[in-house]
Amino acid sequence: MYRDAVIDLLGAVAYGEISAFERLAEDARMAPSLEDKVAIATMASAEFGKVDALHTRIRELGADPFAAMAPFRDAIDLFHEHTAPSDWFESLIKAYVGDGLADDFYREIAAYLDPDTRDLVVASLDDEGHAAFVVARVRAAISADPRLGGRLALWGRRLMGEALTQAQRVAAERDALSALLAGGVDRPGLDLAAIGRMFTRITERHAARMAELGLAS
Amino acid sequence: MYRDAVIDLLGAVAYGEISAFERLAEDARMAPSLEDKVAIATMASAEFGKVDALHTRIRELGADPFAAMAPFRDAIDLFHEHTAPSDWFESLIKAYVGDGLADDFYREIAAYLDPDTRDLVVASLDDEGHAAFVVARVRAAISADPRLGGRLALWGRRLMGEALTQAQRVAAERDALSALLAGGVDRPGLDLAAIGRMFTRITERHAARMAELGLAS
Repeated sequence: MYRDAVIDLLGAVAYGEISAFERLAEDARMAPSLEDKVAIATMASAEFGKVDALHTRIRELGADPFAAMAPFRDAIDLFHEHTAPSDWFESLIKAYVGDGLADDFYREIAAYLDPDTRDLVVASLDDEGHAAFVVARVRAAISADPRLGGRLALWGRRLMGEALTQAQRVAAERDALSALLAGGVDRPGLDLAAIGRMFTRITERHAARMAELGLAS
Repeated sequence: MYRDAVIDLLGAVAYGEISAFERLAEDARMAPSLEDKVAIATMASAEFGKVDALHTRIRELGADPFAAMAPFRDAIDLFHEHTAPSDWFESLIKAYVGDGLADDFYREIAAYLDPDTRDLVVASLDDEGHAAFVVARVRAAISADPRLGGRLALWGRRLMGEALTQAQRVAAERDALSALLAGGVDRPGLDLAAIGRMFTRITERHAARMAELGLAS
């Protein structure tokens, strides 16, 4: 059961990275300048660069990476379908806030993993370097056009809502992953209060990211 | 003049890589399976991964990478606009044959550079690893549907024609690059016969790639 949960988690993260790559690469086409395009493409490539190590670990655990990713394609594809950016700033915020949310969620789950897998998952989430670019661009745009701030704040709420919807869907469908959080005879898990606190932490970090962009959450 | 030509060349290769990244990432959406998508996205990321070293070298030469790339955007964008793949197999062939053509062309020019720059350019062109995937997929598809071979052979000719058109355009517009090939008082250059032999070599390598795919050239 523990092994199944780990394979699930690695599969979800790997497909998430592939999917993030695709969307970022697509969003790069909306970039207003070649400099912006290169910045977004760098983020896209960084996401994709993490896939290989995740696939290797899934193979080490005796599973097929593509089979491991399959159960998460619908939820992740739906998330992206329901949050297709309509302009460059929505793309930037999705890249920053959406990936930040997913990373926080995976990082919370990673706390329940063995140290090796935890390190791998946490390493695959680390992309602090790109945040500064997004923050600078969004803040500059809002100070030039304050009405943009209202629209982008709503966009941030929509990203959060859709992420929770799809996360709930995954939790309902994947018993092993849910059991990882709930614990087992040999491992401590989370009671409902602890799950509540986990979501509080994720929500707080989301609010902090929105505030950094100069947006209400 | 030599420095200008080197900056031109590095700018052209860098923008070519960025552009290849964009097109491959876009083509990945047509992939018939997640395995194929990952294979194409790997090619896209590999192209993009080479940009940073080229930009660094341009900065070392005292120029701005974005200014260095600017003169080549029209020709490279037009090449892609005129060769937008209409299906997955046209994408695969463009990835293999189109990038191969560009690489051969840059490799020929690189022979006229100082060793450091030459090594950098040649390293940024090396992507042998991906060819096997494309060759296997295309050969399997043609043996399943031999009519596909005729259509894809025409596609290969179109890629070649468009590449030559745009290369000629660049040569006509960029004096420093042309002078690099033509030589100067301190460096040997190419006479017309040598330029002819260069194009013969490029054409022969194109034909070899087409043959490897099982296609007439």
